[in-house]
Amino acid sequence: MSKRDPCPVPEHSGSATGREAREAIRRGEWTSHTSGIAPNLVQGNVVILPESAAGDFLRYCQRNPKPCPLLAVSEPGAFTLDSLGRDIDIRRDVPQYRVWRRGELSAETTDIVDLWCDDWVTFVIGCSFSFEQALLDDGMSLRHVSENKNVAMYRTSIDTVPAGIFSGPMVVSMRPLRAADTIRAIQITSRFPNVHGAPVHIGDPALIGINDLAQPDYGDPVTVLADELPVFWACGVTPQAALLKARPDICITHAPGAMLITDLSNRRLASF
Amino acid sequence: MSKRDPCPVPEHSGSATGREAREAIRRGEWTSHTSGIAPNLVQGNVVILPESAAGDFLRYCQRNPKPCPLLAVSEPGAFTLDSLGRDIDIRRDVPQYRVWRRGELSAETTDIVDLWCDDWVTFVIGCSFSFEQALLDDGMSLRHVSENKNVAMYRTSIDTVPAGIFSGPMVVSMRPLRAADTIRAIQITSRFPNVHGAPVHIGDPALIGINDLAQPDYGDPVTVLADELPVFWACGVTPQAALLKARPDICITHAPGAMLITDLSNRRLASF
Repeated sequence: MSKRDPCPVPEHSGSATGREAREAIRRGEWTSHTSGIAPNLVQGNVVILPESAAGDFLRYCQRNPKPCPLLAVSEPGAFTLDSLGRDIDIRRDVPQYRVWRRGELSAETTDIVDLWCDDWVTFVIGCSFSFEQALLDDGMSLRHVSENKNVAMYRTSIDTVPAGIFSGPMVVSMRPLRAADTIRAIQITSRFPNVHGAPVHIGDPALIGINDLAQPDYGDPVTVLADELPVFWACGVTPQAALLKARPDICITHAPGAMLITDLSNRRLASF
Repeated sequence: MSKRDPCPVPEHSGSATGREAREAIRRGEWTSHTSGIAPNLVQGNVVILPESAAGDFLRYCQRNPKPCPLLAVSEPGAFTLDSLGRDIDIRRDVPQYRVWRRGELSAETTDIVDLWCDDWVTFVIGCSFSFEQALLDDGMSLRHVSENKNVAMYRTSIDTVPAGIFSGPMVVSMRPLRAADTIRAIQITSRFPNVHGAPVHIGDPALIGINDLAQPDYGDPVTVLADELPVFWACGVTPQAALLKARPDICITHAPGAMLITDLSNRRLASF
């Protein structure tokens, strides 16, 4: 199924509420990426860690707000996230989870009820879907959407600020835009600091350590036209890279693109 | 005297009030460019036209707000501009005037008291000094300032929207900036729509009809480093180019860089 095709979530498209979407996911009716589901609602990257690693990770996010903008942090052991949505059960409401043990992928699963521990802390990190929706609403065309691909992502030579066991390169997503759209996209995404905010780089990829745009480290390469600039945003894959490097005993994340759907409206994230 | 050197205006530097600066100018003590005089205050491009051409010019500005952001328009025959400053006398408060007859430069003068006609209308148009001050205050370095030059300006292939007798190409100013400063400069200048606002182009000059950055049409060429993007803003020279093309019987402008100093604070122009 393509990234933005209809999916069997009830009332899919703009009319699905966050709760309806989560209930369909909880029932196992949707186990894939969530792009295009309830497109007006904020979706989040999910990281779940034992309390022993959670302090370091919280400081890591605080020091690197562009790649790791925190939308919510749970109480240890709590599987609800009241500030993000009514009756969220973070053990069951993500379509697909990845279980990592000492930095190695150990399993993929559609719930983590049996794994859940009383000291686990959930982090929900803003996702570019929110600002992409604002760009699309403004009339812009996004190449990875029109080419029906995953956005292209790259490791850069920009180091994140370390915290405890967490460190590593900033990962960026790239969207090619013409100059006028680049300027407009900077204006629009500046209004959304909680979902990566303004770009971190535009133009020459080599200046941030990217040697070949045609070979992304994650996602798919997209066409960059002669009259376009590559525009780079800090990416929510950055903390995942830091997690794999830190090799905590256990860590749960969402599977790529299969995000937590919240009750928050994207528009309400705008800072002005 | 260099562009940002001290000048003999009383209380020069940030401490000069607009009225003090205008009084020194009115006494003939300062007849040159005003960059760096009362740097926290808004300065304006000045265009004075007979009422017969003023309607067309007002529509031209309204249709082209990026190059021609109107700060004030006087009543016909009035030489005060109360919304911009106390006791402004537009016949005497610009350091150097240019008198144009049918599009040809006819005279330069330090006042236009003897020329003044009862049907003349004054237009004051925002100037990039205001947003440059905001960029400098943010800690940015501007190449034309560090190289002690006039900013580089270029005619482009972007057409302005015509109105009556007025038409012509958009003129842009160019400042080379590194990518991170480009992004920040777009954020900052977006807050100042009354002084040209966000850039109109970044990157490849050929896409807007500029063949050689080293050969500006106005001002001085500046160094562009390998890790910099040329960033282009709509420029207040645009209406002057349209005026020369329209060839009204008479037209008064300020001499390049010798602007009207107002009582308005640059900060108060910020839209948020």
